[in-house]
Parts: sequence; C-alpha cells; structure tokens
Amino acid sequence: MSSSIEDLVARRERVLGVGAPLFYEQPLHIVRGEGVYVFDADDKRYLDLYNNVPCVGHANPHVVEAMREQAATLNVHSRYLHEGVLDYAERLVAKHDDSIERIVFTCTGTEANEVAIAMARLATGGRGIICTDRAYHGNTALVSKLTWAGGRSDPEIRSVRFPETYRPIEEGLSEAELVERYLADVEAAIESFAAEGVPLAGMLVCSLLANEGLPNIPKGYMARAAKMVRDAGGLFISDEVQAGFCRSGRWWGYETSEFVPDIATMGKPMGSGLPLAGTVARSDLVDTFRKRSGYFNTFAASPLQAAVGSAVIDVIETEKLERRVGEVGSYLRDRLGKIECEAMGDVRGHGLFIGLDWVSDPETKKADPAGAIRVVNRLKDKGFLISNAGALFNVLKLRPPLVFDREHADQFLAAFEETVQELY
Amino acid sequence: MSSSIEDLVARRERVLGVGAPLFYEQPLHIVRGEGVYVFDADDKRYLDLYNNVPCVGHANPHVVEAMREQAATLNVHSRYLHEGVLDYAERLVAKHDDSIERIVFTCTGTEANEVAIAMARLATGGRGIICTDRAYHGNTALVSKLTWAGGRSDPEIRSVRFPETYRPIEEGLSEAELVERYLADVEAAIESFAAEGVPLAGMLVCSLLANEGLPNIPKGYMARAAKMVRDAGGLFISDEVQAGFCRSGRWWGYETSEFVPDIATMGKPMGSGLPLAGTVARSDLVDTFRKRSGYFNTFAASPLQAAVGSAVIDVIETEKLERRVGEVGSYLRDRLGKIECEAMGDVRGHGLFIGLDWVSDPETKKADPAGAIRVVNRLKDKGFLISNAGALFNVLKLRPPLVFDREHADQFLAAFEETVQELY
Repeated sequence: MSSSIEDLVARRERVLGVGAPLFYEQPLHIVRGEGVYVFDADDKRYLDLYNNVPCVGHANPHVVEAMREQAATLNVHSRYLHEGVLDYAERLVAKHDDSIERIVFTCTGTEANEVAIAMARLATGGRGIICTDRAYHGNTALVSKLTWAGGRSDPEIRSVRFPETYRPIEEGLSEAELVERYLADVEAAIESFAAEGVPLAGMLVCSLLANEGLPNIPKGYMARAAKMVRDAGGLFISDEVQAGFCRSGRWWGYETSEFVPDIATMGKPMGSGLPLAGTVARSDLVDTFRKRSGYFNTFAASPLQAAVGSAVIDVIETEKLERRVGEVGSYLRDRLGKIECEAMGDVRGHGLFIGLDWVSDPETKKADPAGAIRVVNRLKDKGFLISNAGALFNVLKLRPPLVFDREHADQFLAAFEETVQELY
Repeated sequence: MSSSIEDLVARRERVLGVGAPLFYEQPLHIVRGEGVYVFDADDKRYLDLYNNVPCVGHANPHVVEAMREQAATLNVHSRYLHEGVLDYAERLVAKHDDSIERIVFTCTGTEANEVAIAMARLATGGRGIICTDRAYHGNTALVSKLTWAGGRSDPEIRSVRFPETYRPIEEGLSEAELVERYLADVEAAIESFAAEGVPLAGMLVCSLLANEGLPNIPKGYMARAAKMVRDAGGLFISDEVQAGFCRSGRWWGYETSEFVPDIATMGKPMGSGLPLAGTVARSDLVDTFRKRSGYFNTFAASPLQAAVGSAVIDVIETEKLERRVGEVGSYLRDRLGKIECEAMGDVRGHGLFIGLDWVSDPETKKADPAGAIRVVNRLKDKGFLISNAGALFNVLKLRPPLVFDREHADQFLAAFEETVQELY
C-alpha cells in the first residue's frame, strides 16, 4: 500500500523545502525501471523518452553488476594508484579527437564546467568567458552566471545570441549569411572584453545548443566561432554534458556540429546515474591546470566511478549504440515530420535528441509553451514521458535512453498522433 | 601479474596529467579493502587510519547490497516523487539539532558549501563571507576562495585567524582571554565589511577546524562567534564534511564544539564513497533558497544516494558507532599521550579524529613538517596509513574508518612506538 501523491508531496515540501522542482501537473511516483520503461506505484508502465542519464537503460544489469563488484572490492580516493581508473581514463579519452589526450574526473557536469573554466583561465591568463544567451551550464556561483546569461551584467562574462535557422536573427538570409550575422556577436563580445581590459579566457558552448531547444545551427558557425576565439587568445570549450555519449548518433556533439574543441566537458549519461563527470583537453592544458590548481575531488577518479563508467562504454560498444541511435533517431524524426499538425512548427535534432518547436501559428512561428505543456501532460497520462524546454519553453524534448529502439519509436508515434488529434 | 608502480605512475601522468596528487614517497597501489584494512597489489595488508569516506569500513557488505538492490531497481533524478529519498532525508535531518528541519542534497562537499553560501546570501541579502585563514572548503571558483584564505584579497571575503591554545595568538592568556582575542578578529572582519559597504551574509567554519590541524578551540569561541555574526545580520554555517557523522564521538562536530549553526554542510562519509553530500538548515532558509534559486542537481536526491546513505546510517546505529568512536578514540588518544617522544609536541582531537603536532623542539614548538612526513612514510612501510595536515603541515592526522576498534588501536600504538624509537 503506497502513500498518496498528496502525502508524498507534503512530506517532500516538509523535508526538501517548498519549491524543489517536480515534473508534471500531477507528479509521478516512480518505483522501478527496466530498459526504456519506468513503472509507477500502481505498476502503470511509462515509455521513457526523457531520461538521458540511464543512457544504457534503467537498471542495466551489466552496469549494476560492475557497480556491485567494485563496491564489494574497493572504493577509495584518487591519491593511490589504481589500474581500473587508468584503464577507464584511457578508454574514454580515446573516444575523443586525437588532439584530446588527458582527463580530469569530477562528480557532476557543474564541476566539470568549473574545471574547464579554471583550466582556460590558467592556460590563457585571461578571465573573460563568452557563452550563448540561453544556455544552462550548471549550478555553482560561477557557472550559474553562464546560465541564461542574456542581459546579465558581469565584468567577466559576455553572452551572444545563439545561432538558429527557424527564428533567425534576420529573415531572408542564406545560411552562410546567417553565420556571419551570428559571428558578429562573438566579435562584439571579444571587442567588448578588449575595450574593458579583460583578457579573453575562452568561449563555452553546448555543442548541440540543447537548452536553447536544439536549433539547427547554421553550418560552419561553430568552427568559425572557435577560430575567432583562438585568434583572440582564448580557448573553445564544448559542453558535452547533454550532447555527448552518442546522443546525436556520433560520440560527441562536436562531431555532429563539425568542430574540434580545446576542452570538452562530460556528465549526465557517463555513469548511468552514478555521479560521474569529467573534463578532457590537450595535455598542455591539463598539465597547467594540475600544476597550478592542485585540484583534488574526494569522490572523483575513484575505482567505483571507473568500473561503472567502463561498464557504460561496454554496453554502448556491444550494442553498437552509436550507429543504432543515428538510425532509430532518423526514423523517429522522419516519421514525426510526416505528422500533420499546425502546432508543430519545426521538427529538428540529431540522433535520439529531437526537438518539436510548438507554435500557435505556423506563419508567425509564435512560440506556444502552454500548448507544449498540454502535450507533455497528455502524453504522460497515456504512459509516455517527455518534457518541454528551449529558449521559449515551447520545444517538446525527446531524449530517451540510447537503447530506445524502432518498436519504441512506433509506440510513441502512435500515442503522439493520437494526442495531437485529441488536442488539435 | 600486476604492473609496476613506475609504469602506473607514467600511465597516470599521461592520462590524468602531470601533477595529479598522489600520496607517499613510493605511491601505493591498493587493489582491495575490507573493514579497516586495505591490501596492495602484492597482497600486503595496511591498517587504514586515514580514510574517513568508507566510514563504516571498506566494502561494507550491508552498504554494497543496498547499492546493488537500488541500482537494480531504479535510479532517477529528483523531479519525480520517491519514498526512499524522503525516508532518508527525514532520517538524516532528525540526527541534527531540532532547529534544523530541511535538506538540499548535492553530490560533493564542495557543492554543499556552494549551496550554503548561496542560501546565506539569498536569506540575508548580504554578500560578505567570513572564514578561518587556513581552512579547506572545496574546489570551485567560489569556495576555493575560502580555502587557505589568509592574506587573500577579495571584496566579499574576510579571513580570521583560527583559534587555538597550543600556539596561541598571545602567550600567557587564560582560555577565556584567548576567546576574546580571537573574537576581535571576527569583530574586525564584520567592521571591515561594514566600512566597505558589503552587507554580511555569514561565517563558514569547520566545526573541528580539521584542516587547521584539529587545534583545541578555546572554550566558548564558536558559540560567541555565531552570536556576533547573527547580531551583525549574518548566518553561521558549520562545515561538517569532515567533522560530521560521529567522527568526533558525537553525530556532529558542532555538538562537540558546543554551538548550533544556522546551516550545516555534510559530505565525505555520508555515502561511504558514493558521491553524496548535502546542506541542512532551518526551514525558512531552505524555502527561500529553493524558491529563489530554482536549484536542481541531476545526480542528487536520487534513489541510489538515498539507499546508500540510509545503509550507512543503519550501520552507524546497529554498531553503536557514535558511542564506540568516543570510547576507542579516547583510548587511542590517552595511550598516544603516554608515549615519550620530544617531537610529539601536542596530542589532541576528538573521537577518532586525532592530531599529533610534530615539532623540532618542544620548548619553541617549532613545527616540523619534514619530520611528520618521515613518520608518515615509515608507518606506511610498516603497513599503517596516516597522513600529515594542518596549517603548518606538521600535524599527523589519524582519521580511520569509524569501525576502527581497540584491537586496531593497539596494533597502531605498537607500530607508532616502534617508529618513534627508530626515528628519534
């Protein structure tokens, strides 16, 4: 006999505080998960198209066994030598571009972004950081300044408008012209720092602009922005916390968005729910950071993190998820694009990271966050978990575990068609 | 056939970077742990008097099984309802002073201190933070400013000299007089903020001054400092990351140091190596923080953290560790105090957190960090793990898992006596 939703919400407010974020109009009480499904206290099944953290599936038995075995053997801090940690570090670094050679492990994506910024500042001697105006990079005092930074005033931070083609900075331009228009913001940020005497440290950007709502990034923007930042003495940092680990059908979002970062940060899916994150970079950058910061993180680079992280890579490799995510994602996106619904202004994304831009009018492209939220809650009632996100909160976000397959896509497509027929 | 130490160090520098911190002259290659023992690749056994994170013993089977069971069932983020998370939160908050009612979970002590400072700033409207001059509070941009802050110049930070009786601010004073002398630093910090127009947010202090080297804190200092800070509009924050979880023979270091904080932060031992930390406070403080920050932490307040954290409390309760730590700690400290060694200038601490102040001359009390390091390495060769710490790096730090018993104390005492006889 489980507690009522109302009782649980009341207990939660009493001990976690009033205002701790909860999903859905009627919150979900989930008690178990398996693969791409989760089950609530009444054993109602939900197809999970939201959770990217359990990337190889909820309660993946290979990951659970790796966790149990290592926890039963040893779990200590990183100031002792441990082969498992080295094996995992080497294996993960090898997934990156050849220029990336070393890693600093942390526990959260927030901590990974803190390390990346400290690394860029120590390596360049600069302080100024450029970010996009509607990003999320974490929750500490420093990185929360880079979150939703548009309009914020801080001497060491400049934000640029994020590039997109659906609601572009100016109508009627070619993609190449759009690149130039958006890059002018980066140029202006660099010049503004120079005018204020703040040396540039770098630019931090999510390689898929996930929190902005997965816009189509005008082709060439990222590589050109990286060059401009480097020419000005800064480093280009790719936030792969959401974009990495085969989410886009490539190992890293920066491959999909066609650039090579100096530094990349990773998180969410990396440990399948075990707190595990990290920052990779060229060897000179990591060494400078190590020597000058003395960085140590009690729980990071531990045997437990390494065993679990390695088990996640095992599954990605064994189940050929990099390829499968691309195939299933294309299938799902193509089918979604064929559904007739005026509210669905744009269907976009890469791999199993798909955004549906919800509008009240396809001509004006006026964002409809309330409509998006209605769809989210209706789908939840039908047993399908998605969310809304984006710069205007109107983008339906589909981001299932990577083991999501074509049969799951078909289940969702049927429920989604039914939902839009009911609501529109 | 395991790799050589040299090979592992070379691989480690290649992938983790040159300068990632390692313990001991000849680094340790530990492969398994059990209770209060760890074993290296040659199956040499070491009695662990260093690791506080595996507080209920290395590879504790009850904790491992709780971890396995929850990982095999469900592990998701905290925007769904979950009874295990609520049960754990309620249980943990109940261990605190009655005035403390709510918790914000995080993954690391660093993140817990970030939350505490943000909470104090939001609740007071102030910005200024006072800390002691030789503390460690974490590794992000903000909290690293509070680390070893003596002499640092930052408009929003003031450091005060940490209180102690062994090398006091002035010789020949009574403990009551020392309290007044040290509190003058707090008063000066408050006045300095006022003079600069920086409203006070609070004071953050480790309740046992662990990183300063576990000094005897002049009786009454903490409660008086807390009152001064509150009278000036600030909040008093106790960093329990090292001091908490029965380390001192009481649940919290603030009980041992006789004060009640407005906010307390917890970390290291909380999840026995699973990244798990948190910030507790009065309900009004947590609610203000929740509503105004929108704080969310992907891996925190998860069912996995709750299951493991709860299993740790199970063991502490079942094995009556709060009482046992006090008894074994007193036994160990008393015996150490009876050992004749001129280099051991002071023996101090609480529960199983003991500091031996190593000096080159007991009259002048001149710190001898090199001598302390020799003892650390000699003991390591004999199969006993300790470290050196403190404001002058000369304090031998004994901080074993809480399940350390009298027989283990006797093993250590024999090895320690032998070591000082060999070296002195």
